[in-house]
Amino acid sequence: MPPTSTHLLTTLPFSARGEHLMGQEMFKVMERAQSLERQGHYVYHLELGNPRMPPPGAIIDATIGAIHDKQLGYTPMAGLLELREAVATRYARLTGRQMQRDHVVISPANLLISQFLDLTCDTGDSVVVFTPAFPSYWAAIDHIGLHATAISLNQETGFHLTERHIEAAMSARPKAIIVNSANNPTGAVYTQAMLELLAHRCEEERVWLLSDETYGDLSFGWPFFSLAAVDSPQIVTMSSFSKIFSIPGFRVGYAVAHPSVTEKLALSCSTLISCLPAFTQIGCVAGLSVLEDYVGRVRKHCVRMTRQCIDLVNASGAVRCGTPESGFYLFLDITETGIDDLTFSKRLLEERHTAVTPGRSFGETCRSFVRVAMCGEEADVLEGLHRVLDLALDMKGTHGAR
Amino acid sequence: MPPTSTHLLTTLPFSARGEHLMGQEMFKVMERAQSLERQGHYVYHLELGNPRMPPPGAIIDATIGAIHDKQLGYTPMAGLLELREAVATRYARLTGRQMQRDHVVISPANLLISQFLDLTCDTGDSVVVFTPAFPSYWAAIDHIGLHATAISLNQETGFHLTERHIEAAMSARPKAIIVNSANNPTGAVYTQAMLELLAHRCEEERVWLLSDETYGDLSFGWPFFSLAAVDSPQIVTMSSFSKIFSIPGFRVGYAVAHPSVTEKLALSCSTLISCLPAFTQIGCVAGLSVLEDYVGRVRKHCVRMTRQCIDLVNASGAVRCGTPESGFYLFLDITETGIDDLTFSKRLLEERHTAVTPGRSFGETCRSFVRVAMCGEEADVLEGLHRVLDLALDMKGTHGAR
Repeated sequence: MPPTSTHLLTTLPFSARGEHLMGQEMFKVMERAQSLERQGHYVYHLELGNPRMPPPGAIIDATIGAIHDKQLGYTPMAGLLELREAVATRYARLTGRQMQRDHVVISPANLLISQFLDLTCDTGDSVVVFTPAFPSYWAAIDHIGLHATAISLNQETGFHLTERHIEAAMSARPKAIIVNSANNPTGAVYTQAMLELLAHRCEEERVWLLSDETYGDLSFGWPFFSLAAVDSPQIVTMSSFSKIFSIPGFRVGYAVAHPSVTEKLALSCSTLISCLPAFTQIGCVAGLSVLEDYVGRVRKHCVRMTRQCIDLVNASGAVRCGTPESGFYLFLDITETGIDDLTFSKRLLEERHTAVTPGRSFGETCRSFVRVAMCGEEADVLEGLHRVLDLALDMKGTHGAR
Repeated sequence: MPPTSTHLLTTLPFSARGEHLMGQEMFKVMERAQSLERQGHYVYHLELGNPRMPPPGAIIDATIGAIHDKQLGYTPMAGLLELREAVATRYARLTGRQMQRDHVVISPANLLISQFLDLTCDTGDSVVVFTPAFPSYWAAIDHIGLHATAISLNQETGFHLTERHIEAAMSARPKAIIVNSANNPTGAVYTQAMLELLAHRCEEERVWLLSDETYGDLSFGWPFFSLAAVDSPQIVTMSSFSKIFSIPGFRVGYAVAHPSVTEKLALSCSTLISCLPAFTQIGCVAGLSVLEDYVGRVRKHCVRMTRQCIDLVNASGAVRCGTPESGFYLFLDITETGIDDLTFSKRLLEERHTAVTPGRSFGETCRSFVRVAMCGEEADVLEGLHRVLDLALDMKGTHGAR
């Protein structure tokens, strides 16, 4: 780099938002893991929720068919009508409400978090997240210049949402609350009663509510309760096709909301990304027609993997973990290793070529946790988990001996 | 809609940013046009730059191959290494500079406009655009809470950039400037000398510069001059694969910049959209290997269409238009019709089923213009343009008779 460049870069500063950008820690972990792979190492990927089950054949066929059919142009900013209609039909059935396509907007789920906050909150407004909380919430809240208020859920009660947490949230006088059931990373599924209470209190206190239901369909006690069932214009329900169809690389998600809100979200799409590809959306339309059958199989796989992994964890005696009620993550308490999440994750990756996500990505209070994703190839997940537990045991031994 | 919903929506306001969202006018026009199509009308689409040439077979094959190959997971936040390397190699050849993959970040081109402004400008900062200017610049500047300073280029001199405009831009003391050559909508290609002067003055005055070169490869006097040739950390060059490969629906673009800037842009991608699909990026890698041959054919098509259409325009005597030096847009001066751009566009769409983009989308001073995209099926473009000119003639007659 020539000296003038360095000079200019140090003297031509980024914006405050640019300086603050944090991104998502698990992508940084993935990239370090991939650089080890380029050096010839085999790495066990337990960092990202990157499901490896084959997606429904109907999705692949429809996507490829649409490419052959030259569906390569722009699409409406709110998403393909057919996909919006298919999602509305599904949610009408799930919730018993009347839903039309104007209740639905198509957008990448990660972007929808930023879009929701951007539409509802002004600089400095407070947003409540219940921790542990998905890293993108923190990144988006910080990026938009909002103030995150963390309400810590209790490990002892399986990280469930309770009335006490809801009242603590309300007393922070937030502009918006983000709730995430089924939860990433804890796997907790909140009760219908508690979600309805939260919705009710948000209405009373005039607070926007984003319900991130990305893992809802992977609740072991399916059907899950969707907050889209509560007909309130201040509730925005969002989800993604990434996890339920094993197609994270499609980058297609959606929000279900009052038409006045979806209209704003569509304008936001137009401003930011113009629109999404037609072929990926056409693939998702095809997927919705086989969803129940496919997701049933994914859920069974998740239940089986969870049981196997939890047995390993419990047998090891090195880490602790509650039993997830959904999805494919374990949120492991590594307190007894005597080292923190970052140290643990780095040693695990560099020495034992196994990638996990450090707990602090889910909130500052989670430094004695790491998240393990169980959605990869079964043999890799089991070998990776063995390596996690071996390192924990070694550390616990060292720690105990100190 | 139940009354409570209305009540709540009117009393639970959106954020200031939410209230202001403008989106892109041409998407609204497209959606109105599509709703006419659903009513059974045949509509001539001259509103969006939605190229209809068949894309390179190599792109289609590689994209479908990657889907078959189950490339359906997450990708690095800065984009696939292979694509970043292929873009770096191309720009090294174009500019004679040393370029590596860390000079490149992959992101949708429309999003890159917002990302650049977000990284470089704080609320209230001034951003210069030379008008007429692409609608997304206005939408992004407004959305981020910045102040747009419009420097009007002169129709008489073919909307070219001159030293006087550059000095006017500098005296507005902007934090950033956006320059767009080859230009959308005017088709003007600025001279290398003028672009270098702009870059030089930006260095002197410590101003960030975004060079949007989406239509650079469609300059009739190719090879075009890319500002990536100027090695300055305050210049960000961006482009898109949409127009040069006739794949707008892939939603893949890129920025070429100093590694300190691409690193920030990658974090911004991670915060907003996580990453892009692998298969579309793999398709673009394949496209780059056949770019020169393919773009040569697109350019020839553009030259031929431009000549045909300009002849029709000149023969009609109803509207005026300079001769584009690039791309596939005509920016028609409809002053003599006696009606403004919005009235003209609406009547054209509703009465003659032909969609164009009203001039004011490119700046408030452009209310006597409409933009016509000549990149659709040839017969449709010609018939659509006939309808534009017929309406203009009819209006001119009425106007003259008044």
